[in-house]
Amino acid sequence: MSLLNYSELFRPKIEDYLHQVIDQSNPPGYKELKSMLFYHMGWEGEGSGSRAQGKRIRPIILLLCTEICGGNWEAALPIAAAVELIHNFSLIHDDIEDQSLTRHGRPTVWSRWGIAQAINTGDLMFTLAFQTAALASGSMEDKLILESEKILFHTTEKLTRGQFLDLHFEQSEQTSLDDYWLMIEGKTAALISACAELGALIAGADHQQQKYFRDFGRSLGLAFQVVDDWLGIWGNPEQTGKSNDSDLMSYKKTLPVLHSLARNGEFAKRWNKRSITSENLSELEQMLIKDGSQNFTQDNAEKLTIEAMNFLKSACPVENDACLALEELARTLTQRRR
Amino acid sequence: MSLLNYSELFRPKIEDYLHQVIDQSNPPGYKELKSMLFYHMGWEGEGSGSRAQGKRIRPIILLLCTEICGGNWEAALPIAAAVELIHNFSLIHDDIEDQSLTRHGRPTVWSRWGIAQAINTGDLMFTLAFQTAALASGSMEDKLILESEKILFHTTEKLTRGQFLDLHFEQSEQTSLDDYWLMIEGKTAALISACAELGALIAGADHQQQKYFRDFGRSLGLAFQVVDDWLGIWGNPEQTGKSNDSDLMSYKKTLPVLHSLARNGEFAKRWNKRSITSENLSELEQMLIKDGSQNFTQDNAEKLTIEAMNFLKSACPVENDACLALEELARTLTQRRR
Repeated sequence: MSLLNYSELFRPKIEDYLHQVIDQSNPPGYKELKSMLFYHMGWEGEGSGSRAQGKRIRPIILLLCTEICGGNWEAALPIAAAVELIHNFSLIHDDIEDQSLTRHGRPTVWSRWGIAQAINTGDLMFTLAFQTAALASGSMEDKLILESEKILFHTTEKLTRGQFLDLHFEQSEQTSLDDYWLMIEGKTAALISACAELGALIAGADHQQQKYFRDFGRSLGLAFQVVDDWLGIWGNPEQTGKSNDSDLMSYKKTLPVLHSLARNGEFAKRWNKRSITSENLSELEQMLIKDGSQNFTQDNAEKLTIEAMNFLKSACPVENDACLALEELARTLTQRRR
Repeated sequence: MSLLNYSELFRPKIEDYLHQVIDQSNPPGYKELKSMLFYHMGWEGEGSGSRAQGKRIRPIILLLCTEICGGNWEAALPIAAAVELIHNFSLIHDDIEDQSLTRHGRPTVWSRWGIAQAINTGDLMFTLAFQTAALASGSMEDKLILESEKILFHTTEKLTRGQFLDLHFEQSEQTSLDDYWLMIEGKTAALISACAELGALIAGADHQQQKYFRDFGRSLGLAFQVVDDWLGIWGNPEQTGKSNDSDLMSYKKTLPVLHSLARNGEFAKRWNKRSITSENLSELEQMLIKDGSQNFTQDNAEKLTIEAMNFLKSACPVENDACLALEELARTLTQRRR
């Protein structure tokens, strides 16, 4: 079975499960609330459909890891759905916090329904995530559910700590590369790492193997974010599906920017003057290249990808289809610039 | 032992436990994040101290119910702390959603640190609540922890559904009394009901007794909110510790207002014109009294209080100190107008 086969097998089951959980107990009075949840999940409203739904990468990683370790992936569905709900709760809140107007090419929940309802809808999504995890009682032992929950709780803690740093650095004059790594460790790597670890845990893998999966997910998550930073400046919006606006115009402190700011050269001078418009973009991009910041970003992405692949090799002692599929998925995620 | 004795016994333990949970894993980089949490809990910053901390009523109810049912209240501390954290997470977010500038006489988290950081700090508080509940593994069996968590997850779902309705009704032209009861059932009664039920559950009470406690908490929560609505118009700000502004000036759809609006008389006409200032207050208050809305509110508060007391009698087959203390607490909460 290839990655495509696994995707085609997992995706509808994940979608069904999410649908079922979010659709439950929605009496008529809560129609608008259900609409907000369904809209955000890409199931309802203008522009709904597979593009609006995102790729559900996190639950797919989790189920592949269960499969690799010889577990029953269907038993892992509640936890996989929980992970996707946690991801989506954080997107709803992050969009408010970052004042993002669009996601997957559609208006964000807060820009459609206002900040107050969006905060609350995110809170409900958060709650549903844990409710979903608790549903695993049909397929998992109590001890295992509690262990999985512990990982989920700690992961959402790391997510919010990472988001704190991100918001904090926006306001602060000095942000170091060390700060950056700490921030993306929480914001991006923690949840992907948890997916890989949970998949192994649920399948009954031993501690060492769980650790290999956790480390694989962590390196993959870091690589994923670094590639995202690269794409935010040099990516083709039509290919990436991201907004047309370069990250440079929103003054995001991404890896290439922080690397270049530390050099304190031409780019830093221009950046500190602010008022960057689309006409200045190519000039600024060139300054970053001159400072070696494009190469630096690319080198880091490659280094982290190799690291991830090595951990994956250690995690998969016997090569099987699921292993190869996960390797392919990891490559897709880290080579999106091609 | 009186209510005061129980309070003096429980309060420092609750405070210690909360402190310990919130203080854990706060490396130097997260100093500001810790400050926001500590500030909200009333432990840090201007105006910190017992008034800023609130009364911790919910964990006290929980621990009293454990005690009544012959359980070990110290074993219930993690769940009691979790309940208080859930309450506080919802306060941080509600304050943003309702644009409230002060709480317990101090600036709210969002008005001090901005909306973005406040949303995220609320999310962390939410996560810590569930982490705290999971800490019960030292004193409770796996099965019991999972059962308690299930109640907590469903309660936060009800909280967010109630808040959805509250925000939704603000915008809608027609809000009925049925809508009102559904809304406060989620917003206020659900968590107090959960406290009473959890206390009994942890002590090993049977299903029938758990149900009596749950129903007691529900009626108490409803009564509490109705009294709160009364105080929001006719209460003395100096005695209640609430803001000086009458709920009438923020156009809150409280019980007396909804009752009077349904009469469609003088009050409704004046209300619909808006622009209510402090000079119009006594006139509007008189219109409410004329419509019988003050009496209606008072009657409902009394009816619900009697209901709560009857459930409590059924819940406590043998009268003991803890029972009397809980009865006293319930009376204090529902007779705050005196």
